[in-house]
Amino acid sequence: MAQTPEFLHDFRSMSTIGATAGGGVDRQAATVADGQTRNWFRGLVEGYGFDVRYDQVGNQFALLELVPGAPYIAVGSHLDSQPLGGRFDGAYGVLAGAHAAKALAALGIDGTGEAKFNIAVVNWFNEEGCRFKPSMMGSSVFTGKLAAEQVLETTDPKGVTVREALEAIGTIGDFTLDVAAYVEIHIEQGRSLDDTGVQIGVVESTWAANKYEYRVIGDQSHTGATVIADRKDALLGAAGMIVAARDVADQFTDADEMVVTSCGEIKVFPNSPVVVASDVELLIDIRSTSVDRLAEADAELIRRFEEAAKRADVVLERGKEHIWGANEYDKRGQELAAAAADSLGLSHSQVRTLAGHDSTNLKDMVPTIMLFVPSVDGITHNEKELTKDEDMLAGVELLTEVLRRVAAGKFVAAA
Amino acid sequence: MAQTPEFLHDFRSMSTIGATAGGGVDRQAATVADGQTRNWFRGLVEGYGFDVRYDQVGNQFALLELVPGAPYIAVGSHLDSQPLGGRFDGAYGVLAGAHAAKALAALGIDGTGEAKFNIAVVNWFNEEGCRFKPSMMGSSVFTGKLAAEQVLETTDPKGVTVREALEAIGTIGDFTLDVAAYVEIHIEQGRSLDDTGVQIGVVESTWAANKYEYRVIGDQSHTGATVIADRKDALLGAAGMIVAARDVADQFTDADEMVVTSCGEIKVFPNSPVVVASDVELLIDIRSTSVDRLAEADAELIRRFEEAAKRADVVLERGKEHIWGANEYDKRGQELAAAAADSLGLSHSQVRTLAGHDSTNLKDMVPTIMLFVPSVDGITHNEKELTKDEDMLAGVELLTEVLRRVAAGKFVAAA
Repeated sequence: MAQTPEFLHDFRSMSTIGATAGGGVDRQAATVADGQTRNWFRGLVEGYGFDVRYDQVGNQFALLELVPGAPYIAVGSHLDSQPLGGRFDGAYGVLAGAHAAKALAALGIDGTGEAKFNIAVVNWFNEEGCRFKPSMMGSSVFTGKLAAEQVLETTDPKGVTVREALEAIGTIGDFTLDVAAYVEIHIEQGRSLDDTGVQIGVVESTWAANKYEYRVIGDQSHTGATVIADRKDALLGAAGMIVAARDVADQFTDADEMVVTSCGEIKVFPNSPVVVASDVELLIDIRSTSVDRLAEADAELIRRFEEAAKRADVVLERGKEHIWGANEYDKRGQELAAAAADSLGLSHSQVRTLAGHDSTNLKDMVPTIMLFVPSVDGITHNEKELTKDEDMLAGVELLTEVLRRVAAGKFVAAA
Repeated sequence: MAQTPEFLHDFRSMSTIGATAGGGVDRQAATVADGQTRNWFRGLVEGYGFDVRYDQVGNQFALLELVPGAPYIAVGSHLDSQPLGGRFDGAYGVLAGAHAAKALAALGIDGTGEAKFNIAVVNWFNEEGCRFKPSMMGSSVFTGKLAAEQVLETTDPKGVTVREALEAIGTIGDFTLDVAAYVEIHIEQGRSLDDTGVQIGVVESTWAANKYEYRVIGDQSHTGATVIADRKDALLGAAGMIVAARDVADQFTDADEMVVTSCGEIKVFPNSPVVVASDVELLIDIRSTSVDRLAEADAELIRRFEEAAKRADVVLERGKEHIWGANEYDKRGQELAAAAADSLGLSHSQVRTLAGHDSTNLKDMVPTIMLFVPSVDGITHNEKELTKDEDMLAGVELLTEVLRRVAAGKFVAAA
């Protein structure tokens, strides 16, 4: 493949932007580092002859016109990262999309009648959701799940709005685009491919998931003066909930189905060593490979939360919740991807995604294909995240072939 | 008492500085509000004819010279508060000290030979330890337990040093003073006096206490992609420790002795809803009315911490620890205070202090008397903290009588 050494060269160059000492990147949404990455990417694809546009919430579109006036196929992922994130999560998929589109252009299919669609390589704004919540923000607006105005007024912990942050890095506009289908490639962020030595994962469905925002309300008092019986300890209540969540995951996981629970964020007030906490906010989620198993485990989780609250003598308020079923990806898309992998001699298997991706949003709007490449030891959201060069290259090769077939009208028909 | 209406007037005036909407105060150490309170207090006592001086770490001394050249007795507490603290904690004792000293001056004992000592009313810097750690900072330097240079370089979460903060509010100097004895009055911050209707607590000893700083070391990964078996979840480990601490308090408290454990502060990294936390820092303390009971409970606590760490697959690092025995206050001081209360017809009982106070430091250097007035429902470090007017006034009356006896050489002899 002519483009492969160039892909690795570009990937290494991109990984220097926002690089951290531990080998990862810090490119949180709409920070200076995210802006630098977006501008680097813009330069790269303008070098390929693509046109770059921004929509109202900073989604970045690199347009390759193969057939004037034809509808667009989108391919992409996200360039933003966690505070100490890996260099592959999201960024691999955007760069792979650009290289795949460039390879299609090089095939000269624009004059042959083979191409029925144009290609938009997309860098979705704020997939990670760490600086501005929620995650998958840009693709949520694009698919009509979130209102643009609400997103633009969302603030980071310092009170900066999304609008101000995007304007500060100059990557906001008024571009709009309809797309007919979506393709995304991403690192697995799990270990099933790495454990089995399979080169490609074809995603068949998401896990079912419930996400809860809780507020734990106690009463502030002096740790050095308040006896146990008088305490309404919000941090103890929250700690009990976190432990209960792990208990439930262990209790409901067996050989058939898996239940995973998480709490990664907690805000404690006043968070002083000598004060019993009066207020804690925490986000807890529960996911399962099975919708039924999830329902059983969730009921037990809520019961255990009340137990934890009772022990700490605190009150629980449940704020926002998000419920997802185990949504399937398009069957014909899975078949197309498997056939493309076979044609290239790449090993592949069906996988489920525990994590959310921009494709989780897009698949609810248009036919969508989601592909994975292996992650070493499944490590992700970590500076040590690693996908091997040969696995990245195999993914670019497959993405090119998939995109070629999709552009030729073999997934969705041109209008 | 001629001074009593004036005391309440002054107390109410002082309570408007840094007042919070909920009826408390926010006067964290060396903030603008703390500076305003210090300057208000300076004006008040200069109005009484006292001289005000600051030492190298911002301890504020209001000097009343009764006998030129005689040694000094110190009386005081602290004017700083928690972020949403009550208006009585510390501030009551400083103002009570000023009014007691003023009452002594009004007695005209300076010319009679009754007075053997001069009086210094002291506002100790940063007793609370919320903006700058550790707590009891000013009295720790005064008693040689902390080095002034180390304290002055200590930073708040924004990187401002104690020296910069004290210079910004103009309450730092180079004054030094030797004191022969120390007297402090404070609200109880517990419910033993309020429950029994007793007016005065004479403190006989501190509780024994161990305080630990722990770092919980896990590994960062994606909550949405990492199965339970692969997680090294620092927040789960910390939550397990917090729950274990409460378990130990419950297990080791019985009718004879009490064990209290607390965790009010936790720092989580990276604290993102989609990331398994890699690092948590937390402060946990364990206290008991009995040194032996504390030792038993502490051993169980450490064992349970290791259990919690094992479950979360994390590593614990124990940082600083502070160990205090159950230190007794001077017996003769307790007798002097009890006799003074009897002479005024005030009911009193011996109490132990669960909380640390500046007197906890001072008593290790000079003979010290510590007095308590009741706190309604024991509520403290809370805007709802309350000591009734009549209890405040009874405390001022007693403090005046105690100070008169101490100044007359009935506690320590004049050199």
